[in-house]
Amino acid sequence: MRGVKKIAVLGSTGSIGRQALDVIRALPHESEVIALTGNKNLKLLERQIREFQPKMFCSSVKPGVNYGGQFLPAEEIASHPEVDFVIVATAGRAGLSPTLAALRAGKTVALASKEVLVMAGEIIVGEASIHHAQILPIDSEHSAIWQCLQGEESKPHALILTASGGSFYHYSQAQLAEVTPEQALQHPVWKMGKKVTVDSATLMNKGLEVIEAHWLFSFPLDSIEILIHPQCIIHSMVEFMDGSLKAQLSWPDMRLPIQYALSYPQRWPNPGLPRLNWNKVNSLNFEPIDFDRFPCLKLAVEAGKSGGTCPAVLCAADEVAIELFLNHRIGFTDIARIVQETLEQHRSINQPSLEEILAADNWARECATRFSCGHCQEPSRRSNRAIER
Amino acid sequence: MRGVKKIAVLGSTGSIGRQALDVIRALPHESEVIALTGNKNLKLLERQIREFQPKMFCSSVKPGVNYGGQFLPAEEIASHPEVDFVIVATAGRAGLSPTLAALRAGKTVALASKEVLVMAGEIIVGEASIHHAQILPIDSEHSAIWQCLQGEESKPHALILTASGGSFYHYSQAQLAEVTPEQALQHPVWKMGKKVTVDSATLMNKGLEVIEAHWLFSFPLDSIEILIHPQCIIHSMVEFMDGSLKAQLSWPDMRLPIQYALSYPQRWPNPGLPRLNWNKVNSLNFEPIDFDRFPCLKLAVEAGKSGGTCPAVLCAADEVAIELFLNHRIGFTDIARIVQETLEQHRSINQPSLEEILAADNWARECATRFSCGHCQEPSRRSNRAIER
Repeated sequence: MRGVKKIAVLGSTGSIGRQALDVIRALPHESEVIALTGNKNLKLLERQIREFQPKMFCSSVKPGVNYGGQFLPAEEIASHPEVDFVIVATAGRAGLSPTLAALRAGKTVALASKEVLVMAGEIIVGEASIHHAQILPIDSEHSAIWQCLQGEESKPHALILTASGGSFYHYSQAQLAEVTPEQALQHPVWKMGKKVTVDSATLMNKGLEVIEAHWLFSFPLDSIEILIHPQCIIHSMVEFMDGSLKAQLSWPDMRLPIQYALSYPQRWPNPGLPRLNWNKVNSLNFEPIDFDRFPCLKLAVEAGKSGGTCPAVLCAADEVAIELFLNHRIGFTDIARIVQETLEQHRSINQPSLEEILAADNWARECATRFSCGHCQEPSRRSNRAIER
Repeated sequence: MRGVKKIAVLGSTGSIGRQALDVIRALPHESEVIALTGNKNLKLLERQIREFQPKMFCSSVKPGVNYGGQFLPAEEIASHPEVDFVIVATAGRAGLSPTLAALRAGKTVALASKEVLVMAGEIIVGEASIHHAQILPIDSEHSAIWQCLQGEESKPHALILTASGGSFYHYSQAQLAEVTPEQALQHPVWKMGKKVTVDSATLMNKGLEVIEAHWLFSFPLDSIEILIHPQCIIHSMVEFMDGSLKAQLSWPDMRLPIQYALSYPQRWPNPGLPRLNWNKVNSLNFEPIDFDRFPCLKLAVEAGKSGGTCPAVLCAADEVAIELFLNHRIGFTDIARIVQETLEQHRSINQPSLEEILAADNWARECATRFSCGHCQEPSRRSNRAIER
């Protein structure tokens, strides 16, 4: 035991944030909530503040009640001297700036928000290195790879990300076009937030994870493979140069990778975490990935390879498209179309600054919204030009 | 790279020995054969000596030819100053004395001969500790567990040994009684020596592996589990206290665990080793173990728990019974009967010396042979008494 971890949970009212608090609740001797931040779900944030009594909190809607703690911006919380462990579980680009603040203050950052590394991987990894700050993955796939890499001195041959394939993996192109938001929000295995659930159905999520793995493990994109594994028991694998592979397995439960980030390099018992029951697991199945039917995956990997501001544009266009899809404004297969058309219009900037990344994000949101109406083949390039050097 | 490993292969003409030489042949810059020892296959040993030109060699049948190397007893070879890595791949008890000699000389011992640890685990592990000598597993299951434990600081919750189940796992008791030696020598996945192939069919092999794991990893016998996994792709798993598991996977090929013992803590590329092709692995299956239909497994685990000279008696009786079975003198299910009856007659000695272990082994061979005729219900207890303190 290395003392009680003093934790800030950024995005505590989201799916990962709530599960992080579940883990912390079960480990009162190992962890203490110092700060909480939420976005729109003020009622839940208030309940969490009453329960955990954090010294600091933050919300996009400033709470009027006096909780005895201090209201501070997320960046100040993430870099506060009383915090030593920052869980970044915010949605989309919101985690970018607090993550940078935390790393620059030398904090350990447990990262659930994949957009942070996808949008600004080079900057994030660079700042972590300069300030000797650790970035620990909370995504189940990346936690699996991280666990499999423990104690290994030789560079791996390949990282193999497993993918459930989502609900529609065997749908034809025509069937995919008919998928409704209600159907897309039913993930076969994981219970997650809306955006990531739709991203799982389009396989965009797996593409973002490829880019995330590239930055987390300094590993070439071409050596990061994807394998369909519907049961989500093997969370990912590492293949070594001698032909040996290691896999990490568990019952699908996000609380495990959250707790592993907290307990690392130890492991802690937690009776609340499920154990894999081999009497119920008779078979683990695998299928090769079909890039053609799931263009979002291909778009993401290509954006990762192009680098520059392309991954940020990918993320932003995808977020806009999913919002439109959930509001029944576009169809399921239009998500990939909008992301692709936005990327095609984008002029990428190499080694962008944070400001350039955020400008590209803004441009992509505007561009993707225009594409959504379907009759806007020549969108304004004003914003795109505005971020050119 | 930590220099060329100077290797003695004890039992170089057996299945594991030949595969060890395959690995060494593929890694001329990492490994060098300093010594070879064989037993009865003199022709093959002569060919190996001509190819590898070892400085030392040994055979139970002293070769008359002058190979330019020195003929020495296995114990002297195992502890020779020019040797730093000893692969023990001899059959049965033959590895015991050279293993002890190697450990006492501080050599790294890569152990394929499971009988060494089963018969004399306490002595072997004790000597390794006193002389700061490493014991590295070559058995595929134990290599898997060892790989999964790398970098883990917390004690595991359970070790899970996978078992193919052999060819007869779904046979009824009546069908098992009819199994012929020819059938028993056909292992569904692994190509191995005769004794270990029959041991796999009776599941005695898995029982011996439980005892071996107990000594290798200082792990309680009750927390070592067995899971039937017919494809032999997952070679074993470790379950941690947080509910996470790690598995080691590969195409079934003994050269991988042999090479890992050589390369540890690094991993070396070797184009000769097969890679797992996920286009061909669609499914991994699992079944709970059925102790009742495979009494050898239960006998082994019980002998392991009883300790003392019981595991040595188990090994010796099993070896005799398998020899009788292969010579069509007894039936397949008689193997378990003979082992059980021999163990029932045995008076175990706690914390036995090496001499007491070897005496128990001798007594058990005599006893098992008598039981084999089926009309010998009161065997001589002379030898049994002879080893009592």
